[in-house]
Amino acid sequence: MGTLTFIGMGLYDEKGISLRGLEAARSAHTVMLEGYTNLMPGLRLDALEALLGKMPLLLSRGAVEDGGEILRAAEERDVAFLVAGDPFIATTHVDLRLRAARRGIRVEVVNAPSIISVAPGAAGLQNYKFGKSATITFPPPQSDVPYDTLKMNRAAGLHTLFFLDLRAEEGQFMTANEGLRLLLDAERRRGEGAFAPGTLSVAIARAGGPEQLVRAGTAEALSGESFGKPPHSLIIPGRLHFMESDALVAFAGADRALVRGCE
Amino acid sequence: MGTLTFIGMGLYDEKGISLRGLEAARSAHTVMLEGYTNLMPGLRLDALEALLGKMPLLLSRGAVEDGGEILRAAEERDVAFLVAGDPFIATTHVDLRLRAARRGIRVEVVNAPSIISVAPGAAGLQNYKFGKSATITFPPPQSDVPYDTLKMNRAAGLHTLFFLDLRAEEGQFMTANEGLRLLLDAERRRGEGAFAPGTLSVAIARAGGPEQLVRAGTAEALSGESFGKPPHSLIIPGRLHFMESDALVAFAGADRALVRGCE
Repeated sequence: MGTLTFIGMGLYDEKGISLRGLEAARSAHTVMLEGYTNLMPGLRLDALEALLGKMPLLLSRGAVEDGGEILRAAEERDVAFLVAGDPFIATTHVDLRLRAARRGIRVEVVNAPSIISVAPGAAGLQNYKFGKSATITFPPPQSDVPYDTLKMNRAAGLHTLFFLDLRAEEGQFMTANEGLRLLLDAERRRGEGAFAPGTLSVAIARAGGPEQLVRAGTAEALSGESFGKPPHSLIIPGRLHFMESDALVAFAGADRALVRGCE
Repeated sequence: MGTLTFIGMGLYDEKGISLRGLEAARSAHTVMLEGYTNLMPGLRLDALEALLGKMPLLLSRGAVEDGGEILRAAEERDVAFLVAGDPFIATTHVDLRLRAARRGIRVEVVNAPSIISVAPGAAGLQNYKFGKSATITFPPPQSDVPYDTLKMNRAAGLHTLFFLDLRAEEGQFMTANEGLRLLLDAERRRGEGAFAPGTLSVAIARAGGPEQLVRAGTAEALSGESFGKPPHSLIIPGRLHFMESDALVAFAGADRALVRGCE
């Protein structure tokens, strides 16, 4: 019986792996990698292979969800399974860990940065002021979850982090622009005042890498801007502390009057 | 004018730094480190020095809050500033980044794992089901914030992550046991039914390292257990998805009937 080590790769490229993760991947018999790695905009397979001293076996999304190949390998030898971001953010990976435990496979975990902590920090917003997060999914159908989440958080003065839907294997990533338009659509449909064209919004592109971009402005203004290559995410702030306002002005180009109005 | 690079070290020891972080620290002229590093239970200064090829300058908490020494150094040369966890979770670091920007110092950031993403994953709980987080502070006075936060989140069926207070330079860390007792005290004082001795609770010790411990049980049962060395944190779950229940049973020793009652 081998060990299955989940190793987070972080958000940008092969250099996001920790030293502990690198050691574990180098010493494993087999390295497997989620093949839909366009989640990590800077990742190059040849650079990863050079770093690890072996070629990772690429797994399709279907193979990761099925899990059989990973589990069968880990029953016989040590397997390092490389994933974008931090390992147990995705339900698929929690499920895989549970199935490994049931088969008696020893599981180890090496953490890495996740969009959950990186996006708030990139915008200079305080983590403890975030409420529930949600994913804005590609329509149809138009899910009510993002709008309901935003309404609940804003009523409590809390910030909302939105993950944007992706079909990574098909190369489809929702842009921050589309996310904002879907929130504006939801407001027109629902009319409950949780969001408006003038609402302060923050778009984050390529979080956690050297090409990270953070822009704050009204939903209307941002939906006309271009943020470049994916992945993108969105934050809709609630009440701002003055240091958060200063950070949005300094790091995200926000208009001072706009952020002051949210303090 | 130099560059000030904030480099996250993760949660456990010197091997939590990413390859990008290691490169940046090695190439910087000066490496500074928050001296109250007992936040990272496995960190050894001699191992860090050997890794970086230079001795980091230890800064007291006061020196980090004051920031003058860091900013003056970064005005003249490239400075790598090593911090526990991910860089911009602490307000002090956001403030320092703002002040660097005002002085025209170029700022770079290298992310690392944060307790914010690691603790939910360690417990197998889904991140998007967490509401606002809060810190349980040492009394007196007994803050109402943790109880208010828990009440709001549980009413919405959401999980709550509690950071536990610390006075790292004095070596004082609140244990998960003390945190649970303070929540039970708050319930006795407030009587609003957000928490009870029988409430499902999760204690996490030394998150993100090889000695990580995750235990789930009633508040009453957990408050009598010992979780070993700090740091600790707490999660009070809201409504559980069945995969979350399974994870709490498999990874945290929860009683199946107890978690089923929370689905």
